[in-house]
Amino acid sequence: MTINVIIAGFKGRMGSTAVEMVKQDQELQVAALLDPFAEEKEADGIPVFTNKESMQGISADVWVDFTTPQVAYENTRFAIENGFAPVVGTTGFTQEQITELSALSAEKNIGGLIAPNFAIGAILLMEFAAKASKYFPDLEIIELHHDKKKDAPSGTAVKTAELINQVRQPKKQGAADESETLAGARGAEFAGFRIHSVRLPGLVAHQEVIFGAAGEGLTLRHDSYDRSSFMSGVNLGIKEVVKRNQLVYGLEHLL
Amino acid sequence: MTINVIIAGFKGRMGSTAVEMVKQDQELQVAALLDPFAEEKEADGIPVFTNKESMQGISADVWVDFTTPQVAYENTRFAIENGFAPVVGTTGFTQEQITELSALSAEKNIGGLIAPNFAIGAILLMEFAAKASKYFPDLEIIELHHDKKKDAPSGTAVKTAELINQVRQPKKQGAADESETLAGARGAEFAGFRIHSVRLPGLVAHQEVIFGAAGEGLTLRHDSYDRSSFMSGVNLGIKEVVKRNQLVYGLEHLL
Amino acid sequence: MTINVIIAGFKGRMGSTAVEMVKQDQELQVAALLDPFAEEKEADGIPVFTNKESMQGISADVWVDFTTPQVAYENTRFAIENGFAPVVGTTGFTQEQITELSALSAEKNIGGLIAPNFAIGAILLMEFAAKASKYFPDLEIIELHHDKKKDAPSGTAVKTAELINQVRQPKKQGAADESETLAGARGAEFAGFRIHSVRLPGLVAHQEVIFGAAGEGLTLRHDSYDRSSFMSGVNLGIKEVVKRNQLVYGLEHLL
Amino acid sequence: MTINVIIAGFKGRMGSTAVEMVKQDQELQVAALLDPFAEEKEADGIPVFTNKESMQGISADVWVDFTTPQVAYENTRFAIENGFAPVVGTTGFTQEQITELSALSAEKNIGGLIAPNFAIGAILLMEFAAKASKYFPDLEIIELHHDKKKDAPSGTAVKTAELINQVRQPKKQGAADESETLAGARGAEFAGFRIHSVRLPGLVAHQEVIFGAAGEGLTLRHDSYDRSSFMSGVNLGIKEVVKRNQLVYGLEHLL
Repeated sequence: MTINVIIAGFKGRMGSTAVEMVKQDQELQVAALLDPFAEEKEADGIPVFTNKESMQGISADVWVDFTTPQVAYENTRFAIENGFAPVVGTTGFTQEQITELSALSAEKNIGGLIAPNFAIGAILLMEFAAKASKYFPDLEIIELHHDKKKDAPSGTAVKTAELINQVRQPKKQGAADESETLAGARGAEFAGFRIHSVRLPGLVAHQEVIFGAAGEGLTLRHDSYDRSSFMSGVNLGIKEVVKRNQLVYGLEHLL
Repeated sequence: MTINVIIAGFKGRMGSTAVEMVKQDQELQVAALLDPFAEEKEADGIPVFTNKESMQGISADVWVDFTTPQVAYENTRFAIENGFAPVVGTTGFTQEQITELSALSAEKNIGGLIAPNFAIGAILLMEFAAKASKYFPDLEIIELHHDKKKDAPSGTAVKTAELINQVRQPKKQGAADESETLAGARGAEFAGFRIHSVRLPGLVAHQEVIFGAAGEGLTLRHDSYDRSSFMSGVNLGIKEVVKRNQLVYGLEHLL
Repeated sequence: MTINVIIAGFKGRMGSTAVEMVKQDQELQVAALLDPFAEEKEADGIPVFTNKESMQGISADVWVDFTTPQVAYENTRFAIENGFAPVVGTTGFTQEQITELSALSAEKNIGGLIAPNFAIGAILLMEFAAKASKYFPDLEIIELHHDKKKDAPSGTAVKTAELINQVRQPKKQGAADESETLAGARGAEFAGFRIHSVRLPGLVAHQEVIFGAAGEGLTLRHDSYDRSSFMSGVNLGIKEVVKRNQLVYGLEHLL
Repeated sequence: MTINVIIAGFKGRMGSTAVEMVKQDQELQVAALLDPFAEEKEADGIPVFTNKESMQGISADVWVDFTTPQVAYENTRFAIENGFAPVVGTTGFTQEQITELSALSAEKNIGGLIAPNFAIGAILLMEFAAKASKYFPDLEIIELHHDKKKDAPSGTAVKTAELINQVRQPKKQGAADESETLAGARGAEFAGFRIHSVRLPGLVAHQEVIFGAAGEGLTLRHDSYDRSSFMSGVNLGIKEVVKRNQLVYGLEHLL
């Protein structure tokens, strides 16, 4: 059974990549396209719209949204009310908006997803790292990025550390009397464990969580090379929301 | 609250390592020791027995068993009947024996564990690999062992592959028209994916599962350096069986 | 002192990348451009030519050549005769042509480079691997590429294996009585050691050489992400040929 | 041709391991043993001595010394004067002593080695890292050790950094305006590059040097698991000193 997909913001970088992804999956079909900047009436036989109101009554299952924070909330609300399960990659939702949209979706018995991160690999890494930290409280995080990155540690490393900290039994690692002969060698401390940030040309975005215990080690690593990595998450989102009956925040709830 | 532990087979290599582990954990205490080859009546103040029948009525919570296939079934049955939750590392149980012991434990409302593998890291790796394969059907396994190992691939690699195969969507990987200019380069095929076995001096027992998708990669690696790695699993087993009310087969059921 | 560079084949993919690289290096300057398909007379103030004969007498130090096998030999000869040290990435030279061009360059007292591979990292990896194999005869090669690659093992892996084989003391690795329960698990055999080829989406071109000895391991890994990696080798070539007085074949001779 | 080896300090941990290593190599033979604590007159048919003076005139080629700083200088001098090429793993030599012993060995036309580190893999890693840093000035060092280690970074990491610094073109890495949101995340700075120290149970002694450049990466890693790793260096030293005619300091001079 084919899933019919509307793509809002199809002129943007993420939106146009999503169009390609949908076209290449035989289980999916593009039903309509929306972008205020579109000048054409149709693209490859697919109807193109410049305002959402004209899209009422279209036969579609899912509303993929890569628009702007200014319109994403209204778009998502519109999608739910018209029976299109939303898959939203646009950022900027408040907690109140998410709660309200989730309630609305439950009332309408329609699934949905708002996701700040569509990289399945990164989300699995965080989930696995948190679970492993229950049994291996000794761990260090090494994140590696290109050398144009300004902040250290990365947001993903901090988020991973927070998730670990929710389940890990508190422990200050390392020798009690350890000392640094060169300041910073032991990295940044976070809740008793350490985070190291490597910055080198050629690298893109990588993260390793290393666990150690008597006689063994467990290492989890995610490598992100380019934007195409997000599309497997969008694809998964489309296929999952049609089976659900309430909007969730975070791709991890669909894994 | 201290957990009192009987250790059966305490003269053996695994049994004696277990005694040390229990002694070093402040939440645990050795209640009694059993080994037909013991000549002493007590060891460090702990009573020593040479046959299990003399141990009825001892005040203990858990029965750790590292004995022999010949006696392990009878020992486990004895433990359950006398209210000691068994944690059994001895191999050789038949499926019928496991089913029967599990039923008996449920009847007696007592927890228990029979585990062919106590390495928590190896078990987590398998669990994570199986879960990741749901989203990343493209994967390869590389296992690395010392160069005295005779069989390839390792039993752990095959077991990992089987667990992956239960959940992974079938797919034959690689280019449709790929060919080997040197036979064996692409490794062993298992259900459409590949397993590679590295053998080198200096290595102990290591396994990597590498997943690839558009623009990203996920790598899971376990390194096992020595026998001490099993003790964290025995420790976990002891602490978990006292909270349960039925015997399970496989440490993964307590994670 | 600025090095003046002619770029032949500047309309092609490699040639145009070379133009950008030269422009971004303050020690280098583009002196002139050559391409039979050029229609402009100049580009950014740099004179553009469509045939090499018109370039005699130009003031330049180095001739970078990313043209075609059909013209590269004549181009290189022309460059040497006109006092431009050639740095040639075009393939298809015969051994006789290389010998002749090298002799001609020596006669003219001019440096030069013809290189089948400009990736410094890949060349260093091969050199290091060969040296390490003198002391660690136990090794395995794992090469990892995208899953569209048709041949296995990769040409780079075979070349690395050949270089190792020239210096490594012959040895058949692994347990004498090892056996495969799944055919191919132990990889391809090459002179007593093994090569494994991994193919996954998301990967580009990667190679690992793992050495093992009693109590230790040494791992060398090269990751190639995109074409830009070749430019550091071209840059190095330009800066080295102006110091030399004979053409060499292979970037390794300038390291 | 068999090389006859005297082992001084054969009752110690390193000395006794050296005896085993020599016995297992068919090209080597134990000629005599020395240790002031020895009570036996011979061991497995090999003559045992408790003072070096009694050993004059013994037929041997090499003097392996794993004794104590108090006697190592006198032992080495004695060895050279009696025609035994010294291979010395004992520490505590002053620069003056080394210079003097080297001069004495040249005078006597005898090879020799005093080595603070016999791990060939660690020495190769340093040599390769220094060479790669000529072409890839962007690099970071990650060293990983067991969590009982008190100092960070490790001595090996600092030595590696110093060797790199002798040949690397000076450069301050990372984004010009990078900042740490958690202090220490970017590691310790050494001459413009960074060193990170990981400490976890289960680890032994490991070091990784990661190089990055446009579109590529090069990673060198050494893993040291146990003391046996030193013996390949001792073995190499024995076989090399007999071909030389002057004592050197540092195993790298024999590679």
